[in-house]
Amino acid sequence: MNRTKIAQLYADAESLGGSRVTVAGWVKSVRDMKNFGFVTLNDGSCFRDLQVVMNREDLANYDEISHQNVSAALVCTGTVKLTPDAPQPFELTAESIEVEGTSTPDYPLQKKRATVEFLRTQQHLRPRTNLFRAVFRIRSVAAASIHKFFQDRGFVYVNTPIITTSDCEGAGEMFRVTTFDPAHAPLLDDGTVDWSQDFFGKAASLTVSGQLNAENFAMAFGDVYTFGPTFRAENSNTTRHAAEFWMIEPEIAFADLNDDMDLAEDMLKFIITYVMEKCPDELNMLNKFVDKGLIERLTHVATSDFARVTYTEAIEILERAVAAGHTFEYPVSWGIDLQTEHERFLTEEHFKCPTFVTDYPAEIKAFYMRMNDDGKTVAAADCLVPGIGEIIGGSQREERLDVLERRIAELGMDEGQYKYYLDLRRFGSCKHAGFGLGFERMVMYLTGVGNIRDVIPHPRTVGNAEF
Amino acid sequence: MNRTKIAQLYADAESLGGSRVTVAGWVKSVRDMKNFGFVTLNDGSCFRDLQVVMNREDLANYDEISHQNVSAALVCTGTVKLTPDAPQPFELTAESIEVEGTSTPDYPLQKKRATVEFLRTQQHLRPRTNLFRAVFRIRSVAAASIHKFFQDRGFVYVNTPIITTSDCEGAGEMFRVTTFDPAHAPLLDDGTVDWSQDFFGKAASLTVSGQLNAENFAMAFGDVYTFGPTFRAENSNTTRHAAEFWMIEPEIAFADLNDDMDLAEDMLKFIITYVMEKCPDELNMLNKFVDKGLIERLTHVATSDFARVTYTEAIEILERAVAAGHTFEYPVSWGIDLQTEHERFLTEEHFKCPTFVTDYPAEIKAFYMRMNDDGKTVAAADCLVPGIGEIIGGSQREERLDVLERRIAELGMDEGQYKYYLDLRRFGSCKHAGFGLGFERMVMYLTGVGNIRDVIPHPRTVGNAEF
Repeated sequence: MNRTKIAQLYADAESLGGSRVTVAGWVKSVRDMKNFGFVTLNDGSCFRDLQVVMNREDLANYDEISHQNVSAALVCTGTVKLTPDAPQPFELTAESIEVEGTSTPDYPLQKKRATVEFLRTQQHLRPRTNLFRAVFRIRSVAAASIHKFFQDRGFVYVNTPIITTSDCEGAGEMFRVTTFDPAHAPLLDDGTVDWSQDFFGKAASLTVSGQLNAENFAMAFGDVYTFGPTFRAENSNTTRHAAEFWMIEPEIAFADLNDDMDLAEDMLKFIITYVMEKCPDELNMLNKFVDKGLIERLTHVATSDFARVTYTEAIEILERAVAAGHTFEYPVSWGIDLQTEHERFLTEEHFKCPTFVTDYPAEIKAFYMRMNDDGKTVAAADCLVPGIGEIIGGSQREERLDVLERRIAELGMDEGQYKYYLDLRRFGSCKHAGFGLGFERMVMYLTGVGNIRDVIPHPRTVGNAEF
Repeated sequence: MNRTKIAQLYADAESLGGSRVTVAGWVKSVRDMKNFGFVTLNDGSCFRDLQVVMNREDLANYDEISHQNVSAALVCTGTVKLTPDAPQPFELTAESIEVEGTSTPDYPLQKKRATVEFLRTQQHLRPRTNLFRAVFRIRSVAAASIHKFFQDRGFVYVNTPIITTSDCEGAGEMFRVTTFDPAHAPLLDDGTVDWSQDFFGKAASLTVSGQLNAENFAMAFGDVYTFGPTFRAENSNTTRHAAEFWMIEPEIAFADLNDDMDLAEDMLKFIITYVMEKCPDELNMLNKFVDKGLIERLTHVATSDFARVTYTEAIEILERAVAAGHTFEYPVSWGIDLQTEHERFLTEEHFKCPTFVTDYPAEIKAFYMRMNDDGKTVAAADCLVPGIGEIIGGSQREERLDVLERRIAELGMDEGQYKYYLDLRRFGSCKHAGFGLGFERMVMYLTGVGNIRDVIPHPRTVGNAEF
């Protein structure tokens, strides 16, 4: 079919005025004025609709068309008519309209506004609504911007494994992957499962992070990134947690924490700028109907210098705020893990811009983060943004073999499990750093959508894995 | 650290002659000629190495540097000296060299050629070898080319779910995902597992394809694609099968099988052309050491028109070949599933170019493929390429509600499970089509590497999930 997409009509409207085109799409509405009528058509190629004008005298099947239900698929051939005085820059005067696929009067998404809760039960149809059309286009464009950002800088994209047999820390939050039927799994004499008979010859689970694998590749390519799904079997039913989500994890060699923060700041600004450039219609709709501060906030982040403050200074700022009468639900003192209320105070009320908090107490951070000279903090950096709190967690990695071995021993971890990771410190170790960006959290930030279930095509949360 | 990457030196060599730069990378070799010496350094930014020239009189630590082991990390500052008469266009005359991280004499990858089998046991180090440096750079560039191809055409990237509770066909080949300990899984009275108590409230597994989900989005956005991991719990230990691999699955609305083949052909040519443009050094090395016909074959595919032949015609061609004395291991007759030997005969010996075989018997294809008017074949198209056989499998999808319902009933499938899929045929159905490209098979094709274990960072196969 030699069809023209609606996106192309909007891109080339001027030059297409008067030309004959065929457009195929789905009905958003039909208005029948008896001898003429209007069909609003969307083909998914862009956010905007096409207005098709039909005259009874031109169409033998005028009545058939004027009775189509919402979401019917039509193929319309006609002439592009520029309408400089109308709200839309052009319309299509139909010569012929064919019904490709009908719809029914009980189509679940009628024009009346449906709640997002209802739409979550209609995940196969909700991308046809304005809200989800905007969200999922932005999700796609944001993903493209991330690949472009890293590829243009020479980073190598690494597909780290989804199924993993290492990383047994936090196993309680991991999903098992098995070919056993749990009703008939082979057991050892002590009553535990004989994993040696499972598919991989040992217990396997779904990855929670590709970082340790990415480090293998950073020590070869210098700059690498992952972008893939990760998993948490957390039994938490919040608006910000999903059991399956995508992460971006860059890892850079010959680089310290400042290089890491520079990279994170450049990346966030790039993503925002790119999406604002490619998706103005989607952002305008979201700014109007979902989050009235959206475009202002994104513009602010894309153009501000990010603040940088140590954890110790951040605690002092919070303590001064408490002394001055500000109340937090969670008490503030050196050593605590910052809560979202603390993070939002720092970035929204104190600094009023995106803020990196660095050099956290070692006790509240992961074993692989580089120990600072003070012996009690590590070279970590979390990025807090107004409206959401933490969006990125990063660190310089411990590159000193002896320090890392000591840390693994102190924490009672199994050194044998980390032989390969320690090898990287034996054979040409170098300063290196990286961070993780939760992709869904980024999409929430870009769209103003408050529930992670509404930025994932088919979300997986505790008790839910439909479609 | 204000360092210059080796890739940038090669890109801007002319203008950098005489300038002072700092380069950081890993030692490939050190040659000590007593009063001067050479360090071959690679920083992973490109395939090529940098030759660093050091003079004893310039370096206080000359002896320390000349005794470094393979893979030590060094930071070298010096002057770029153009060497128009030498094999390499320039070298670095060192002013200072610092050891960032030492290596050891027992570093596992010494200069002597290691076998790929041994290197599979050193997955954390093998990206440092020429072979894997080339393979994984090409893998990354190929992934980037795929996103670019689809994004430039306005396709929406959809992250279809990894954990799925549908698609119970072929459950024998699926991995279960569970938070149960199989030694203590809750059982129903009949002794089977009570999945209602599992994390998602029902049995879950790892996806084998995102296609049905992608169709949901194609009916909203028109053109979409997936690019993510998929899984098979097949107990097959071959050079072409992995338990975890990445797939690209575009899905296009208002499109038939010819549109689908046009898209597949354009995509394959785009990927090959893009990789040939971005990775000439990698391809030259692979062409020299791995597969001497590689560049010729890729050039041929990128510039040929693909042949198109129906399955019925293909069977006739094969039968004529048999009559003329050609022997196949598997007998040929209408109704068989084509074996790799048949596919390779068609594309390599008969057509001598990439070949689409279309309109296969319905019995050997999936339920969702569109039934042809003959009532016995379906609108499927597999793309066969010289040297490998099938690389793409695609089809036009059955868009007619009644035909699809009948097919689901005939095959004894559970219609309830496909309610959502059938909804797409109730509400604005349209002709649509799509295909699947196995990404690893594409990377094997691009690199000439014969074993899938060598194109995946950390491969997962039966009995193996290390790192």
